[in-house]
Amino acid sequence: MQLIEDANREAVRRIAAAEPVLIDVRPAGEVIPALGDRVLLHAGPPIEWARMCGPMRGAIAGALVFEGWATDLAAAERLAGSGAVAFAPNHHHGAVGPMTGITTRSMPVLVVENRAFGNRAFCTINEGLGKVMRFGGNDAEVLARLAWLRDELASVLAVGLRARGGLALKGVIARGLAMGDEMHQRNVACTSLTVRELAPALAQAAGSTDKLAAALAFIGANDQFFLNIAMAMGKAIMDPVRDIPGSSVVTAMARNGTDFGVRVSATGDRWFVAPVEMPKGMYFPGFSEADANPDMGDSTIVETVGLGGFAMAAAPAVAGFVGAGGAADALDWTRTMYDITLARSAAWTMPSLDFAGVPTAIDVRKVVSTGIAPVINTGIAHKKPGIGQVGAGVVRAPLDCFKQALVAFAATLGVA
Amino acid sequence: MQLIEDANREAVRRIAAAEPVLIDVRPAGEVIPALGDRVLLHAGPPIEWARMCGPMRGAIAGALVFEGWATDLAAAERLAGSGAVAFAPNHHHGAVGPMTGITTRSMPVLVVENRAFGNRAFCTINEGLGKVMRFGGNDAEVLARLAWLRDELASVLAVGLRARGGLALKGVIARGLAMGDEMHQRNVACTSLTVRELAPALAQAAGSTDKLAAALAFIGANDQFFLNIAMAMGKAIMDPVRDIPGSSVVTAMARNGTDFGVRVSATGDRWFVAPVEMPKGMYFPGFSEADANPDMGDSTIVETVGLGGFAMAAAPAVAGFVGAGGAADALDWTRTMYDITLARSAAWTMPSLDFAGVPTAIDVRKVVSTGIAPVINTGIAHKKPGIGQVGAGVVRAPLDCFKQALVAFAATLGVA
Repeated sequence: MQLIEDANREAVRRIAAAEPVLIDVRPAGEVIPALGDRVLLHAGPPIEWARMCGPMRGAIAGALVFEGWATDLAAAERLAGSGAVAFAPNHHHGAVGPMTGITTRSMPVLVVENRAFGNRAFCTINEGLGKVMRFGGNDAEVLARLAWLRDELASVLAVGLRARGGLALKGVIARGLAMGDEMHQRNVACTSLTVRELAPALAQAAGSTDKLAAALAFIGANDQFFLNIAMAMGKAIMDPVRDIPGSSVVTAMARNGTDFGVRVSATGDRWFVAPVEMPKGMYFPGFSEADANPDMGDSTIVETVGLGGFAMAAAPAVAGFVGAGGAADALDWTRTMYDITLARSAAWTMPSLDFAGVPTAIDVRKVVSTGIAPVINTGIAHKKPGIGQVGAGVVRAPLDCFKQALVAFAATLGVA
Repeated sequence: MQLIEDANREAVRRIAAAEPVLIDVRPAGEVIPALGDRVLLHAGPPIEWARMCGPMRGAIAGALVFEGWATDLAAAERLAGSGAVAFAPNHHHGAVGPMTGITTRSMPVLVVENRAFGNRAFCTINEGLGKVMRFGGNDAEVLARLAWLRDELASVLAVGLRARGGLALKGVIARGLAMGDEMHQRNVACTSLTVRELAPALAQAAGSTDKLAAALAFIGANDQFFLNIAMAMGKAIMDPVRDIPGSSVVTAMARNGTDFGVRVSATGDRWFVAPVEMPKGMYFPGFSEADANPDMGDSTIVETVGLGGFAMAAAPAVAGFVGAGGAADALDWTRTMYDITLARSAAWTMPSLDFAGVPTAIDVRKVVSTGIAPVINTGIAHKKPGIGQVGAGVVRAPLDCFKQALVAFAATLGVA
C-alpha cells in the first residue's frame, strides 16, 4: 500500500536524520515535570504494584528511602502498596531506565537532545556493577552510591558537558561499532571513547582535582557506563518517529519484568503487551536460571534503533558473554534481523560484515509475517529484591505483542 | 633437532612469561647512557648518512636544530654529513622509534619494564598526525611540538604513571584486540583505554588543571598515541629472547628506509639485511606511490611479537585502511602467519577467530621453508624530507634477510 510505503520511508528518514547529542546532566525533577512528591517512574509498559516483580519492588522500596519518603525498606514496601505512591512508565515522560528503571526526582539524569528535531530524552546514570538499584539492590551501599552520583558526579559531568558544548553521539556509536561494542551488553569502547572525549573538558571545568579524579575513576571502572547514554540516545532518536499515520515501524520496546510492551508509529502511545520471556544466557558463579527474573528494562530501546542484539555482528566478544555462540553466530544474529527491518543504517556500519549498516526500523508487519521476533541482549536480575545481577543472556521479544500491534495498525487503516 | 626444539620452547616461554608495564617517562639522555652530545639514534639496522633516505635525513636535521647542535636546517645537514655526528640504531641501546625513529638526549621517552625479566625498553612519545618528525618533518611547528612534549606533556605523564604504579600492558593489549586494534596501524582502542586507565591518576597528580586538560586533549586527539607504547612493549618483550643458543626465533625486525634488518635469537646482535620493499597501500588525497619512501621504522617490533599485520583478523577495519581487503581477507592474513610462527598467544586472542591466539614467535626456518614473508602494516612517508605521511599500507619483510639469517643460524649449530 502506497500510504504505508510513504509513511515508513518517512520513519526511516527521521531515524537516519537524527542528531543525538549528550548535552547535560540534571536532577530528574527539573527536566521531568511529572516527577513530584511520591512519584516513581519505572521501566516497561504500565504496571501496578501488585503485579510487579521482586527486583522492581526492591528498587522502588530503595528509592522511597532514598528520597526520604519512607524511613526504612519495610515502611517503604507498605507505602508502595498503600496506593499513596504514583507509578508511571519512564516512556510516558521522555525517559528510559535500565532493568527496574526506577527514576525519582532527585536522581540525576543524562540529557540527550536530538538536534534534528529539538526533542530531549533522559536516563539515569549507570551505577556500575555489583549490587545496584537497577537490579533491585536497595541497601545502604546502594543508596550511598546514588547519593554520591547526585551530590558529586552529576555536577562534574554537567559542568564539563556544558563547557564542551555536549558530546555528539552518532560518531561515538559509529566508532564503537568498529571497536566491538553493540551498546547493550558491551559498551567498553564507547565508555572509553566517552572518557577520552570528555576528559579534557572535565579537567578544565573541574573545581577540584580530587573530585575530578574520583569522577574519572568511577566512570573508568565500569565498562557499561555508556549503556545509559545509549539508551537516552535511543529514546531521543525514536520519539520523533511516533505518530506517523500509516507507519508500521516499531518506536519502542520495553519490559517491566512482568510484561513486554511494544509501540508502533501509527498507533501512537498505545502499548501492546504480552508476558515477558526468560532470557537464555550465562550465569555468574553460584547462580542459575532458577534464580533469574524474567526479562526487564527499557534498555531494548537500543535494539529498537538497530543496536544491541541487532548489531551482534559488530561484537563477536559479546556473543560468548551472553551465551549466543561464536563469531559466525554473531554474524548470523545480525543477518536474521535484516529480515524484519526496513533499512540498513548508513552511519552505523560493521567492519565484520564489510561495513554493512546495522538493521534499522523494525517493521511490525515483517515480524509477524516471518515469525522472527527481535533479538535482545540483556542483563539478568535475581528474581528476589535486593540481590542484583546474576547473569547475561539473549531473549526474544514475545511475538504476541507484534500480532496485537499489527491488528491495531490495520485498524488505523480501516482494515478492521 | 632436539636442541632447536628445546631452545625454541624456551623462546616461546619467555615471550609468554613477559609482564610489560609502562612505568615512566624520562629524558632519553637519562636512561640511555650512549645519548651524549651530537649522538642520534635512528630506526632500523645501522646506516651511514650517505645511504640514508630523504625523510631520515630531514628528521636528523630537525633533531640537530632541536638539540641546539645546529642553528638551522642547512647547517644541520652540513653537520650531519661532516662526520662530527654519531649515528646508531635505537635497537643497539634498548630503544625503538617509529618511522625515522630519531631519538636524541632531551627527547622524553616512554619507559616499559618487563617485570618478569627486569629489563627496560624505551620509545619516544607519539607526536600526533600531520607534519611530524617521525615522517621527516622538521619545520618550526614540528620542533615546537617536540619542545611541548619535552617541557609539558612528559611531566604530566611521568608524575601520573609513577603515582599509579605504572600501567600493565598485557591486559590493555588483550582488551584492545577484542576492540578491533592490531596495535600498528590501528590503536584507537588502546589509546582510549590508556586515557581511561590513566586519567584518574593524572588528575590526582596534576599540579594544574590547565596542563592536565592540555595533556588529555593532546593524547585524545591522536588515535595512534598508543603505537609508541606498543613498540616499547614489543622491545621489552623480545629483548630477553635474545641469545638463546639453538633458537631460530626472530627477535627483531626493523627498517631504516633503505635496509630491512632481522635478528635471530641464536645469532645474537647480528643484523641480516636486505633492501627494504615498497609498501602496497592507500594514499592520502594528492599523493601516490611515486611520492612514497620505501618501508621504514622500528615499529615492526609489534609484528615480531604477533601484533600488527599478524593480528589483522582482530582489526577488520584496518584492512581497508591499509588496502589489504575486506573482513574475510583480514582473517586470512592472520591465518597465513600461523604458518611461520611457533605458537598462539594464550593472553592475546581474537574474537573474530573464536578467540584463537595471535601468531607468536616467528621461526626463521619456517619463513624460508614456506617462502611466506612476515606481513607488516605500516605508515608510508613521503620520500622527500620535511613533508610527512602520505598513506598507509601493507609490506612484506624481504625474504633475503631470512635466508641469510638461516645460513648464519645453521652455522651456530656447526652446519657450515
